[in-house]
Amino acid sequence: MRKSLEDKIKKIKMVAMDVDGVLTAGEIIFINNTDEIKIWNVKDRMGFALAHRTDNLKLCWITGRESKEVARCAAECHIDAIYQKATKKIQAYTDLKEKYKLQDDEIAFLGDDLIDIPLLRYAGLAICPADSPREVKKEADLVTKAQGGKGVFREVIELIIKTQDNWDKVCARYYEEGE
Amino acid sequence: MRKSLEDKIKKIKMVAMDVDGVLTAGEIIFINNTDEIKIWNVKDRMGFALAHRTDNLKLCWITGRESKEVARCAAECHIDAIYQKATKKIQAYTDLKEKYKLQDDEIAFLGDDLIDIPLLRYAGLAICPADSPREVKKEADLVTKAQGGKGVFREVIELIIKTQDNWDKVCARYYEEGE
Amino acid sequence: MRKSLEDKIKKIKMVAMDVDGVLTAGEIIFINNTDEIKIWNVKDRMGFALAHRTDNLKLCWITGRESKEVARCAAECHIDAIYQKATKKIQAYTDLKEKYKLQDDEIAFLGDDLIDIPLLRYAGLAICPADSPREVKKEADLVTKAQGGKGVFREVIELIIKTQDNWDKVCARYYEEGE
Amino acid sequence: MRKSLEDKIKKIKMVAMDVDGVLTAGEIIFINNTDEIKIWNVKDRMGFALAHRTDNLKLCWITGRESKEVARCAAECHIDAIYQKATKKIQAYTDLKEKYKLQDDEIAFLGDDLIDIPLLRYAGLAICPADSPREVKKEADLVTKAQGGKGVFREVIELIIKTQDNWDKVCARYYEEGE
Repeated sequence: MRKSLEDKIKKIKMVAMDVDGVLTAGEIIFINNTDEIKIWNVKDRMGFALAHRTDNLKLCWITGRESKEVARCAAECHIDAIYQKATKKIQAYTDLKEKYKLQDDEIAFLGDDLIDIPLLRYAGLAICPADSPREVKKEADLVTKAQGGKGVFREVIELIIKTQDNWDKVCARYYEEGE
Repeated sequence: MRKSLEDKIKKIKMVAMDVDGVLTAGEIIFINNTDEIKIWNVKDRMGFALAHRTDNLKLCWITGRESKEVARCAAECHIDAIYQKATKKIQAYTDLKEKYKLQDDEIAFLGDDLIDIPLLRYAGLAICPADSPREVKKEADLVTKAQGGKGVFREVIELIIKTQDNWDKVCARYYEEGE
Repeated sequence: MRKSLEDKIKKIKMVAMDVDGVLTAGEIIFINNTDEIKIWNVKDRMGFALAHRTDNLKLCWITGRESKEVARCAAECHIDAIYQKATKKIQAYTDLKEKYKLQDDEIAFLGDDLIDIPLLRYAGLAICPADSPREVKKEADLVTKAQGGKGVFREVIELIIKTQDNWDKVCARYYEEGE
Repeated sequence: MRKSLEDKIKKIKMVAMDVDGVLTAGEIIFINNTDEIKIWNVKDRMGFALAHRTDNLKLCWITGRESKEVARCAAECHIDAIYQKATKKIQAYTDLKEKYKLQDDEIAFLGDDLIDIPLLRYAGLAICPADSPREVKKEADLVTKAQGGKGVFREVIELIIKTQDNWDKVCARYYEEGE
């Protein structure tokens, strides 16, 4: 890993992210015109659990869409803050910084499309999935190997936890359990 | 890009398209015998937003199938005209030309199967997804890199907007926002 | 194409097939413990339409499972005969032969798993999807390029129609329409 | 196959497994905030049928999540024992050993994530899907060719049945039927 990237990762205290195309493969599904359905990934779920166990990483979702399912899932995953219908994502971002008293370089942002470019520019660590458009990749410090919905967050959170030297602590229970 | 293709793209004022196999991967899903479910792609959604922002591109859906979900989604995406249950797609096409006072060479058509061949022949710019049958590809000016449902429209609309020199205008807000 | 395979295809008057793993990718989905959901492929739909237009090919589904959705879809696709809950598929096959007064060499069978081996052996033309187990591929005259649910039937029906020299007749309307 | 692996497989009397990411591709789907939906694979279904026909292999599911759909499906597949909401999977494992009077080396365990590491260490035969994290693969005697949800169990059960010399017995009906 480049030294400059490593330095950026070490400072991160919050991982903020878009939802569709990052935590999902971008599928949009409705049933009987009712609420929107998402296809989440169990690998990311495990990632949220790992993040919480560091005790020093806040998690936030910022999405331009709105659905009960996103709220339900955020609650299930103990996401610290969630912004839906955020057409101006920069407002959510500014609000977040103030609420958690964070500097730009303490925030990582994961986004996959043009609408995420402003936040990718503000955040100290800009990350996008492998299947993002060229314009988005140009703004990113890091492009994940995973495509949207295939474990993007899991890949990112493992990298952050390992770079911040918390991996052994976070995983200890899996190796000690049952002994 | 071939000069002839570039010339064709520059004239386009409407993008008409089939739905199943173009905007979706061709999955047909029913729940409890009720209305049909589609799996849309958030990348195409962004594409519809980009198209609207050009102020000079009309969008139209022409499908041989019929469902409330297609109507709902067309409304959500502000599609200018929609034809369902169009077993003779040529009638929808003729109607469109008249309604918007367009010439054939001002219309791009995206279709993925044999039933789309007549419209691919009439439209000034004929486009099909990467996973179309050989007979359909033979009729196309352009075969997208994307497969049906994986961002075919997004790829097409970006190409049109860029070739018509509107990309910077359309994307300006993503680069200026927050400054 | 091998001459022997061509000869086999020319004799076919019925295409009988398993459902799960052939017309679908093998996904089994239930919602709220109610009826089973299938993910059908629009390319196969077009294939059923092409088959009907030959006027000399019967279509039949034989499945070991049972759901209202399979019955609904068979009706929508004008399938000539359908056997659900067919744990002994050979009984359905024997019944079919009698009902339509067909010989074994006039029947093609598409199956993807061990349970389909008896019918693959009886039918004059044995076909399986690309992702079938080795034991099944050993029984097949033809392994499709497509995987289950990705257009297996479409690939098969095009091959049959073309080999029986009916392709131009069947497709004529797509080339003549609108003239 | 390595002699040591062959020896391990020959002793197996129970195949215990995680559900999400093993029997599914890890998708987590909710509809209208109701019960969880899973996408099962018909190839694994056939695998459960094959396992039962050996008359000497017990099957068990151990999952950290909980849903009616998992219970329904386990019943449909005649799974011998099922543990849901098993946050400490080791308790389920210990309970299983006692209930069926089994030794560790008589149990195969299939798991795909960090939470499965303790059981992968206890079980005599540790198996994980192709798309498991590096830490999990390190614990496995065998990494399947299949990814989660794409026939992992089917691949495993075929290997076990063949290595235990029961394949011909189990499959006999497919070759004899109809004679």
